[in-house]
Amino acid sequence: MEDYRKGGFTLPGEAGYEALTLKMAEKWGADVIRDSDGTKLSPEIINAGYRVYSTICIIREHNAFAQAHPDAQQQTFLSSDPIPAVSDTLEIDPLAGYFEEQFQLNDSPEGLAFWQVWDRTANELISPNDWTYAEGRISVRHCIPYHRYSASFLCWRIWEEINMYNHTTNHWKTEHLRQLDPRHPLAWEYLQDWLRRWCENNPDTNVVRLTSLFYNFVWIFGSDLRRRTRFVDWASYDFTVSPAALRAFEQEYGYALTAEDFIQQGRLQATHRPPTAHKRDYMDFIQRFVAKKAKKLVEIIHEYGKQAYVFYDDSWVGMEPYGKYFSSIGFDGLIKCVFSGFECRLCAGAQVPVHELRFHPYLFPVGLGGLPTFMEGGHPEKDALAYWLHVRRALARQCVDRIGLGGYLHLTIGQEAFNDTIEKMGIVFRRLRELHAHEKPAELPVTVSVLHTWGALRSWTLSGHFHETDGNILIHLNEALSGLPVRVRFISFEDVKQGALAETDVLINAGRAGDAWSGGDAWKDPALVTEITRFVHEGGCLIGAGEPSAVSGGDTRFALAHILGIDQDDGAYACHQPWTFETEKAPFRVADEAVGLTPGIRLTGPDTRVLCERNGVPVLTLHDFGKGKAAYFGGFTYSPEAARMLLELLLYLTGTEGNAAGMTDNPLTECAWFPASRTLVVMNNADEPAETTVSLPCGSRIPVSLEPLQTLIKTVETC
Amino acid sequence: MEDYRKGGFTLPGEAGYEALTLKMAEKWGADVIRDSDGTKLSPEIINAGYRVYSTICIIREHNAFAQAHPDAQQQTFLSSDPIPAVSDTLEIDPLAGYFEEQFQLNDSPEGLAFWQVWDRTANELISPNDWTYAEGRISVRHCIPYHRYSASFLCWRIWEEINMYNHTTNHWKTEHLRQLDPRHPLAWEYLQDWLRRWCENNPDTNVVRLTSLFYNFVWIFGSDLRRRTRFVDWASYDFTVSPAALRAFEQEYGYALTAEDFIQQGRLQATHRPPTAHKRDYMDFIQRFVAKKAKKLVEIIHEYGKQAYVFYDDSWVGMEPYGKYFSSIGFDGLIKCVFSGFECRLCAGAQVPVHELRFHPYLFPVGLGGLPTFMEGGHPEKDALAYWLHVRRALARQCVDRIGLGGYLHLTIGQEAFNDTIEKMGIVFRRLRELHAHEKPAELPVTVSVLHTWGALRSWTLSGHFHETDGNILIHLNEALSGLPVRVRFISFEDVKQGALAETDVLINAGRAGDAWSGGDAWKDPALVTEITRFVHEGGCLIGAGEPSAVSGGDTRFALAHILGIDQDDGAYACHQPWTFETEKAPFRVADEAVGLTPGIRLTGPDTRVLCERNGVPVLTLHDFGKGKAAYFGGFTYSPEAARMLLELLLYLTGTEGNAAGMTDNPLTECAWFPASRTLVVMNNADEPAETTVSLPCGSRIPVSLEPLQTLIKTVETC
Repeated sequence: MEDYRKGGFTLPGEAGYEALTLKMAEKWGADVIRDSDGTKLSPEIINAGYRVYSTICIIREHNAFAQAHPDAQQQTFLSSDPIPAVSDTLEIDPLAGYFEEQFQLNDSPEGLAFWQVWDRTANELISPNDWTYAEGRISVRHCIPYHRYSASFLCWRIWEEINMYNHTTNHWKTEHLRQLDPRHPLAWEYLQDWLRRWCENNPDTNVVRLTSLFYNFVWIFGSDLRRRTRFVDWASYDFTVSPAALRAFEQEYGYALTAEDFIQQGRLQATHRPPTAHKRDYMDFIQRFVAKKAKKLVEIIHEYGKQAYVFYDDSWVGMEPYGKYFSSIGFDGLIKCVFSGFECRLCAGAQVPVHELRFHPYLFPVGLGGLPTFMEGGHPEKDALAYWLHVRRALARQCVDRIGLGGYLHLTIGQEAFNDTIEKMGIVFRRLRELHAHEKPAELPVTVSVLHTWGALRSWTLSGHFHETDGNILIHLNEALSGLPVRVRFISFEDVKQGALAETDVLINAGRAGDAWSGGDAWKDPALVTEITRFVHEGGCLIGAGEPSAVSGGDTRFALAHILGIDQDDGAYACHQPWTFETEKAPFRVADEAVGLTPGIRLTGPDTRVLCERNGVPVLTLHDFGKGKAAYFGGFTYSPEAARMLLELLLYLTGTEGNAAGMTDNPLTECAWFPASRTLVVMNNADEPAETTVSLPCGSRIPVSLEPLQTLIKTVETC
Repeated sequence: MEDYRKGGFTLPGEAGYEALTLKMAEKWGADVIRDSDGTKLSPEIINAGYRVYSTICIIREHNAFAQAHPDAQQQTFLSSDPIPAVSDTLEIDPLAGYFEEQFQLNDSPEGLAFWQVWDRTANELISPNDWTYAEGRISVRHCIPYHRYSASFLCWRIWEEINMYNHTTNHWKTEHLRQLDPRHPLAWEYLQDWLRRWCENNPDTNVVRLTSLFYNFVWIFGSDLRRRTRFVDWASYDFTVSPAALRAFEQEYGYALTAEDFIQQGRLQATHRPPTAHKRDYMDFIQRFVAKKAKKLVEIIHEYGKQAYVFYDDSWVGMEPYGKYFSSIGFDGLIKCVFSGFECRLCAGAQVPVHELRFHPYLFPVGLGGLPTFMEGGHPEKDALAYWLHVRRALARQCVDRIGLGGYLHLTIGQEAFNDTIEKMGIVFRRLRELHAHEKPAELPVTVSVLHTWGALRSWTLSGHFHETDGNILIHLNEALSGLPVRVRFISFEDVKQGALAETDVLINAGRAGDAWSGGDAWKDPALVTEITRFVHEGGCLIGAGEPSAVSGGDTRFALAHILGIDQDDGAYACHQPWTFETEKAPFRVADEAVGLTPGIRLTGPDTRVLCERNGVPVLTLHDFGKGKAAYFGGFTYSPEAARMLLELLLYLTGTEGNAAGMTDNPLTECAWFPASRTLVVMNNADEPAETTVSLPCGSRIPVSLEPLQTLIKTVETC
């Protein structure tokens, strides 16, 4: 039996702290030492017998080449803020309001050909005959006075965004790094050569850790500190564009994309909004390009006998692990930084040999939110435990191969509480990994299909981390699901029409009216609504949350209102009086604080059961429809109790006996049951001692006492 | 000089209480005695030297005729609640869920010709070949399984709605009254004859008080007491419909209306929603019909030497006092029941010789909300004072000719506090009327144009009383405006395009996204947006409240966002970070409790000044635009302080000196200044003593001490 003290742990080494590196590797049981952004491992570390990860960001740190070939830099479309004409002419300064260190106009003839000027009042494109460009300014003539005009233009991105973030947040003072576009033929040749040279020059590296590929998530800075970040979207494709890409697209698809396909009235292509058909085409086009180029890089790395792992963050656009082309790249490992359980599942479920998590906090003085971690006022061990509580539930459900940390190792000096915490986590991780190696934990016969615009492509995640998307009800539900003993998959509206409900017990639709998660205009398709109506009427289950299936044009605000038994008054129910109701006791434990309000919810009829209300508005309801059942949450905020409520709701809706997967009776505790080895994993999600009884499928009821936050792993004799 | 103790007061007389009637007439200074619903005056009262009003409801109390000619009864379109098909056939019970005592199917061949069956899932009309009707049920074939179907059908309204209300609320036990449709030729002949007979039989009546004309506001009852009122709208036209009306419409307009023009996916034609072009046509058609028929009735009344007053409530649809045809009817007086200041202004501004208010509370045991008034637990004098505080401000601004009460006079027995209160109100009313008789009170040089879909047609009111529409931000603003010393008018979007802003200093748009008050799709017209942009840019002022100019399809959620300096994130700003802000001190007194939140409001740029916020959301802002200014309220709840805040905002926006109309410095007090007679009317809106100084245009500052709620009327020597 393993002693669980070593293995599956990646330590960030630090040059100049060789003794510390080796000491911490020992303490945390590391088998791998990696470098981090801005640090390079010394020979002393590299030769200490550990496997070595080396981080490269393939498109960055080529400033000399970028200076020599400025047209090989990456680009984007931007739109100027609309301004009103007060006469029949107007001057536009395209970059006014943008961060001048990030952008530079692409006013080459090739770039200018893609510029547009729009009358945003009339929503009309201005004829190119009616505007001219010179020396950074656009002059428009034949304006309609008091209409508002904006320009859409291409510009070079002259500061790689993660480097820009580190400079502006962590006060880096080094040279601004630029980024190359692999679509540029010279740049692509250069990057391949560079990678080959790099491999030659780094014989000790076992794993090339790509951070990550080519195109950063979209991050647009403004010139005004009152709005430094104008736009940030972890999953949109605006930063992939260039005249070359647009030409290649047109050649392949037979139609041309224009600036407006990207600008969309200034809204850009936010992942939270349903995509246009053009955007879907463009995403597929980019995904294939990214996969093809990445495959080439992986092949080069393999030629040198190294492995290629990819860190799924930063410049990852187009390589979504659940995208159609990800597995064609041939990565040897996927590394995901995790704050949350859903990120753990996202990594664990990807089709790739090795799944590795980078835990938080990062070994940096301040955290992502700007609060202290490894400096005075910080409590890194508390941060680590808070994230661990989210991640552990998911680790218990699905196997992950490795964990690790990132950042500056020297910041751990004197942080004994943190260092001990990580050591303990490593042991628990290894014990779980060992269990998973032999069998899957028992699962309930319940398949939950989360339904949204993106389907599998955006499995588990929305667009970025939990704290970036926590205004979206779905991420709370995904987080709750990440630790529940049910099968979870993510399906699109198209999937539903193709029969995906055949493998579904409970369908979830959760979002805000018009967003990609609720679905927006997808609900105008009667085929979609009809199929879900059939599914529930014949015995399926539906959970709606927030503004599920909200759409305009129908006779109800929610296309599934008749199933849910509730609808939303967005004003269209004017003069229609609502049904009065009384609340009734729920057939499961309600986590009252987790349930929230969506304004305007009203019952569609007298048969809807209201379990909770806020100020007279139903916030948690049940409704029978045919042989099926539906539930509605006005709001759902993740907490351990909320996750437990969701589990009990799933059991209620599907009429399932929970003990099949092991079931605690204390809602602050959870368990996973590995039947072949008769091993029970019981987790205390509370920061105080807990008592619980675990019911097992054999009928045994096991009393368990847990320390605060404890992970108890025990073999059960009686089952 | 009048002694202000008598005149301009209409007393509800009561048979059986002759001595009380005469005593109360003396106490309250009545010059007119009227009967009320359900009471008839005795000769003793009629012959006591007072003028006599007699109430008739022309279309009601003809049950014998209605029994003999059931096809002369009024009708409406209704829609059955959509139900899903689970096979290819479906049975629909059209009236399921409706109050069976109110409706009866019009399944005559003439009626059935207008019935429709809809697939509400696909939003498609079902071919008449695919459904049949027999014995109260509709059978649909060729259904698409799991689509939802509803039937739209004509039905007779077999219980006059006000009578139905009195039965169900006040427990009347008498015969259900029916109502005749004056469009039915026999009914129309009968009604004219009946009116002639009535006039002959009531020689002592001076004024025929019509309550009111032909078509009740829409009030649809349900069978289930958990939703007794399914739909109620004081201003929609659904109850005017009949096959005859539809045929006449088609003949005149050259196109046919269908059931769906009325049903609108089950939403009906609620006044709070923007009308279709068809609905606008139909309203004009009905208004002309109502005016023509009403004119005939007035002529008959005049033939008998009587006057015709109309009570503006109940069956008033089509006779809106600010409609195009109202003055053509030739009424001698308009009587309006008032809870609020806006209703007082609505009455006072109508083009009719006599304007009369019926004060509240009604002399009934319980009030409209079901709470006790003239019974144990009631405080009718407090109710009267509460309404008086709203009405008095408006009375001070614009002349009204008469006041009065309604109901059962015997309920005043023992109610000395109430009786004394009414007596005092009568005196104040007469003093104000006397002031108005000689001059208008001083007004500021500020014209406020309230902009919404309906324009002048719905001047002051939305759809009914304050308490029925108080979820609409505009009614709060209208109520505040009703007592302010500014000119107020109501304009439509069409008016703006026709140049109405030339006479506007401050434009107000206040409503909820998509409603008739905000404007909905009207804002898709660039000409409208451009004209308002020009207006403000050149120096005009704009106040937006709630979700002003909200519309989909543009580059902002509010079409006027660029002027207001704020916009709303309805999800379309996903990933766009908001401008941060700090609040600053307002250049006027903010009534903090009156200002409320609209979710998602964010600044459009750094120049918007935030005066109040709630949970980080701006709720009161100012923004300069060109030479003009704009203000935004997230919410606005009427109170005396709120009205004062609005006045000070108007002064700030327009740069106006307030003393021109007299100005108190205590925000709980208001004043009106009659310059020719140097008379100052100072009102204490608080139920406690108040001190204030009144600044007059001459520069005088008059200190005033006021009793709780006092109306102080004094002549000023120094001005």
